[in-house]
Amino acid sequence: MICLLLCFCVAHADDGYRLWLKYDLLSNSSKRSEYRRFARFIEVRTEPTPVVETALAELQRGIQGLLGTKVGTTPKSRGGVILQKDGSLPEEGYLIESKDGNLLISGSDDRGILYGCFELLRLMQTESQVSGIKIRQAPKIRLRMLNHWDNPLGTIERGYAGASLWKWYELPETIDPRYRDYARANASIGINAVAVNNVNASARFLTAEYLNKVKALADVLRPYGIRVFLSINFASPKILGKLPTSDPLAPEVRNWWNEKVKEIYRYIPDFGGFLVKANSEGEPGPQEHGRTHADGANMLAEALRPFQGKVIWRAFVYSPDPAGDRFKEAYHEFKPLDGNFDKNVIVQVKNGPIDFQPREPFHPLFGAMPKTPLAMEFQITQEYLGFSTNLVYLATLFKECLETDTYASGKGSTVARIIDGSVHQYPFTAIAGVANSGSDRNWTGHLMSQANWYAFGRLAWDHTLSEAQIADEWIKMTWTKDPAAVSGIKNILLRSREIYVNHTTPLGLHHVIGQGIHFGPEPWLSRSARPDWTSVYYHRADSSGIGFDRTISGSNALGLYRPEVQQQWKDPETCDVKYLLWFHRVSWNKKLSTGRLLWDEFCMRYYQGIEGVRWMQDEWNKVRPLVDPEMHADVAGRLAVQLREALNWRDACILYFQTFSQKPVPSPLQPPTRTLEELKKIVEIYQLK
Amino acid sequence: MICLLLCFCVAHADDGYRLWLKYDLLSNSSKRSEYRRFARFIEVRTEPTPVVETALAELQRGIQGLLGTKVGTTPKSRGGVILQKDGSLPEEGYLIESKDGNLLISGSDDRGILYGCFELLRLMQTESQVSGIKIRQAPKIRLRMLNHWDNPLGTIERGYAGASLWKWYELPETIDPRYRDYARANASIGINAVAVNNVNASARFLTAEYLNKVKALADVLRPYGIRVFLSINFASPKILGKLPTSDPLAPEVRNWWNEKVKEIYRYIPDFGGFLVKANSEGEPGPQEHGRTHADGANMLAEALRPFQGKVIWRAFVYSPDPAGDRFKEAYHEFKPLDGNFDKNVIVQVKNGPIDFQPREPFHPLFGAMPKTPLAMEFQITQEYLGFSTNLVYLATLFKECLETDTYASGKGSTVARIIDGSVHQYPFTAIAGVANSGSDRNWTGHLMSQANWYAFGRLAWDHTLSEAQIADEWIKMTWTKDPAAVSGIKNILLRSREIYVNHTTPLGLHHVIGQGIHFGPEPWLSRSARPDWTSVYYHRADSSGIGFDRTISGSNALGLYRPEVQQQWKDPETCDVKYLLWFHRVSWNKKLSTGRLLWDEFCMRYYQGIEGVRWMQDEWNKVRPLVDPEMHADVAGRLAVQLREALNWRDACILYFQTFSQKPVPSPLQPPTRTLEELKKIVEIYQLK
Repeated sequence: MICLLLCFCVAHADDGYRLWLKYDLLSNSSKRSEYRRFARFIEVRTEPTPVVETALAELQRGIQGLLGTKVGTTPKSRGGVILQKDGSLPEEGYLIESKDGNLLISGSDDRGILYGCFELLRLMQTESQVSGIKIRQAPKIRLRMLNHWDNPLGTIERGYAGASLWKWYELPETIDPRYRDYARANASIGINAVAVNNVNASARFLTAEYLNKVKALADVLRPYGIRVFLSINFASPKILGKLPTSDPLAPEVRNWWNEKVKEIYRYIPDFGGFLVKANSEGEPGPQEHGRTHADGANMLAEALRPFQGKVIWRAFVYSPDPAGDRFKEAYHEFKPLDGNFDKNVIVQVKNGPIDFQPREPFHPLFGAMPKTPLAMEFQITQEYLGFSTNLVYLATLFKECLETDTYASGKGSTVARIIDGSVHQYPFTAIAGVANSGSDRNWTGHLMSQANWYAFGRLAWDHTLSEAQIADEWIKMTWTKDPAAVSGIKNILLRSREIYVNHTTPLGLHHVIGQGIHFGPEPWLSRSARPDWTSVYYHRADSSGIGFDRTISGSNALGLYRPEVQQQWKDPETCDVKYLLWFHRVSWNKKLSTGRLLWDEFCMRYYQGIEGVRWMQDEWNKVRPLVDPEMHADVAGRLAVQLREALNWRDACILYFQTFSQKPVPSPLQPPTRTLEELKKIVEIYQLK
Repeated sequence: MICLLLCFCVAHADDGYRLWLKYDLLSNSSKRSEYRRFARFIEVRTEPTPVVETALAELQRGIQGLLGTKVGTTPKSRGGVILQKDGSLPEEGYLIESKDGNLLISGSDDRGILYGCFELLRLMQTESQVSGIKIRQAPKIRLRMLNHWDNPLGTIERGYAGASLWKWYELPETIDPRYRDYARANASIGINAVAVNNVNASARFLTAEYLNKVKALADVLRPYGIRVFLSINFASPKILGKLPTSDPLAPEVRNWWNEKVKEIYRYIPDFGGFLVKANSEGEPGPQEHGRTHADGANMLAEALRPFQGKVIWRAFVYSPDPAGDRFKEAYHEFKPLDGNFDKNVIVQVKNGPIDFQPREPFHPLFGAMPKTPLAMEFQITQEYLGFSTNLVYLATLFKECLETDTYASGKGSTVARIIDGSVHQYPFTAIAGVANSGSDRNWTGHLMSQANWYAFGRLAWDHTLSEAQIADEWIKMTWTKDPAAVSGIKNILLRSREIYVNHTTPLGLHHVIGQGIHFGPEPWLSRSARPDWTSVYYHRADSSGIGFDRTISGSNALGLYRPEVQQQWKDPETCDVKYLLWFHRVSWNKKLSTGRLLWDEFCMRYYQGIEGVRWMQDEWNKVRPLVDPEMHADVAGRLAVQLREALNWRDACILYFQTFSQKPVPSPLQPPTRTLEELKKIVEIYQLK
């Protein structure tokens, strides 16, 4: 079979399926020679558990591909890779060093060995030096997790890369080989947990039928060091158990959860725990029963505690108050509960206070919950960042948030140091990314979005890595090792997010999107099922100006931050313009620190965004001869789509806000040639049945 | 790039992506030698149009793969394939003959040449004789069409193979290479038209933005001889044109459609026409305006006529009348309109009177509309036939319908001869299949469902082909040429549909499915938004018996057929038991022609269905060494799922109907070990939010 398949494969270009795990023969022969000096054998000097077997198999596969030589497991005295355990290393950590003519990969545990092997492969894939190295690594955060918003019927909430990877109706009997490749990709970047189903959770996942299916997935993921979590429906005792209530303080409800958890662990002995969206956007929760988030979380924690399971309780809550400020609501609901949560509860907080906007200030809960482990929730899928048609490298967004100083415990209390536990000595740490993978052959729709999956994993492992370094690795593993092309692609990646911000929501504008189409502009949206789902709630534009006054003269959401943070943002004269409209209501004629009037700067940014997309197109064209032609064409096509969409954003926002500013587009910019009505029609098309 | 990819491909087994177009090197060297005698060159002796270029490229690709030799286009005197036109052949027809040491493929037109080339490739793929052949072929039906029920947001109504193939948001700038492989697959079996969007149609497809996208698809499909149709929303003049009405007799509405059609043809000069679901299941239509289906269809026909476009108007209509019989409704609405439709209107009728059940009698409209061309609508996607987890070869179902005699014009007036136009001399003929393809890598979810796509195309081309012959070709091209394995797989395919009927709806039972889950049993369903969406409407079981009396003593739906057909089915004593409950209400104690009492036969069939699935598992295990291991495992997994689901069907139906029959499961059958309540819970899980 294998030889026959060749005939077909050669007729096809690359389809992106292999992600960054391309083990193509290295074209650099001196590098091949260098690496071959350690590739005569692989010796496993520890118990061959399933995870260690995975590490061995991956190393064999990688070496065979990269160096073109099969590598066996018969030990020789020199020239091999030795896998062993070293209990003195920190959990999941590893040490790679050359010693006595061999390369030793010592892991603190099975996962440490696995991650060490992937590190060695990454070094070879990027043609880095291996001889004489000594690399000691351990993850800064313990639980590094993907959250899949996948529904039982195969759709994905905010998923833009086809259908769900999980074929629920085919499980457990049919095991799609993609599950293993998914697991490999995650293991290669240190992801060690996944919540497989949407946080808007169907109760069916807790039935015996579905637990059987989840068990089958867990069995596939386990040898890759990945534990499975489930999102749960808080009303399950009522829905499944037919109890009269789901009140977390009711004994029969507590008993139902206790029994259910025991049942789950019979299927999946290393089950990770529950991810919970409760009393948020219509999902059931403890508040319906007059109880708090802590009451709800602690009930689940009690059930999970005997098995070391975790409760990850999301802080994404907000009640529909037209006079309120959604910015403050999670803080007001959770801050008073600090200290009330059980030890195995983690509260998961989105990076910003609203909802995964292209740019947000960090969430004010970070630094405000010293007694409650807080997990970071980033969104890898590009719900508000151009879905599958826009090129946006998110490491820049992640890093911007992680490196912001909360001043929670004095200077240097960055968000990263909150979530890695070093500021508040959290007993447990976690970070989650809402997955962008789907059933599309290339996993992520936009090939460049593979970088966001990769970057999330790398930053979850080590948030001190720079976005440039991560981009460098990823490009070399995915596209090319040609230095000029690497540099060209890296420039595109590093600038892409600011370009996107400019052509959609510059200067701190936020949430001016369509109600259904979170990737499209609808700044005129003024009616919705909830006031805080409109655009006007956020931009508050009128003839006098634009922006949400969150200073003390307004909602004072700014007051939720430490004084040092407030100081940076409270004065519209000194507030970084990138956050300006997040905190201030500004006159159209206000002169900004950039030297331009607000309206002029506002227009200028949109046009810069368009120029940015054109620049990305030019740069991308330059690398064409150096990368796979089919993959190049795919990205080029999407850049063309992005340009069209960016022009829609620009024209929609400029023409709409111009109805308030009553000012011309400043020269030398050419004003939009379309009318606001035309733009409204374009948006309307996407709302058509 | 190409050589590097090899390393990856060899590590993977087959994933089913290539469908039946596997051009793997033939292992039979004598066959290779035979074919090589015609593979020294390919000469194109006609204008190299895009379709001819496609034919040439496919032939080169196929020969290179199958024979392992590149073939150029420099003519020599002997030993080549010559492509030419022969205007004396019937439209789309071809003649393949060996002559003067060459193989001549003469096509009546471009498509004839294309189909001739695929025929030659099929001969080689199946290792058939080529030397000395003379094959003359022409399609029996002119329009051979796939209907995609794909929605703009990427879901597919009743689609079970991932998301939509069409990436609307990425079009027109990004062209997924899969579009071309999709087109190749269709061209290889003679499909020459596709309606790309759901019949529950979004108006957005008629906007300029979407026409641009549809144009891009049409441009990809055109070189493969495929024309694009659109499903339309009948209320588009109101929705898009902002007219006060969509009344088909209103001049401004007619004008709107005329202008819209002109616009469409500016984008797509060979646009096929409209597919229309109107006044059906909530879709808008002419009846809201007091007009008939003919009024609506003729208005569109007038707009399309200048461009030779067609209106395909679906007859799938039924109004919710608890006292009525859905069986009769399309007949009653359409029969009186015979003769009232414009010449370029085709009325598309589902194979049976209800809705794509595992077995239905043929639709009584076939043979009843001598003045109106009727198209057949088959469903390739397995909405009611076990979706992606059940193995059902549908050629058996298609053939059963096609070969049934309507007696419309005396004996021999088969359904096939109605739709191929030979009975009523229709000026135009058409057949449509609701597509089963999606974004899953293997296109159809269940690998065996690829056979249904293939068989639909082959039968659309030539309905006289036998289901066994089609299976034989498909197996050899897809799985193996080993004679024992071919025979084993063919046996499975040929028996699979009867096995499915037995374990779900034997003896003419129909529509006892869940409201949302059309692939699951819910015979107790008694409440729904419409009475004819329940199960009890159809089975009418009580303690005295089961079945829908459609004879003269009941709804007399049987009276819609010709007397000769009525004669076959009107007497419960002589009616083929496979249609029994379609037409008769039968006492549980009635002795059937099989010698058993109805209840006993009913039970027996379910158990036979289970045995049938087990038999398929055994037979499938036998071929394991002879087929691709990954593909084998996938089918084996799904057979295991099917067994589980079949047991649910059996137990649900037997336990539920036993509450009426009050009789035991006859020995030696072992009664279900589960209770009806347990089965209801299993079904309920799939209805959970």
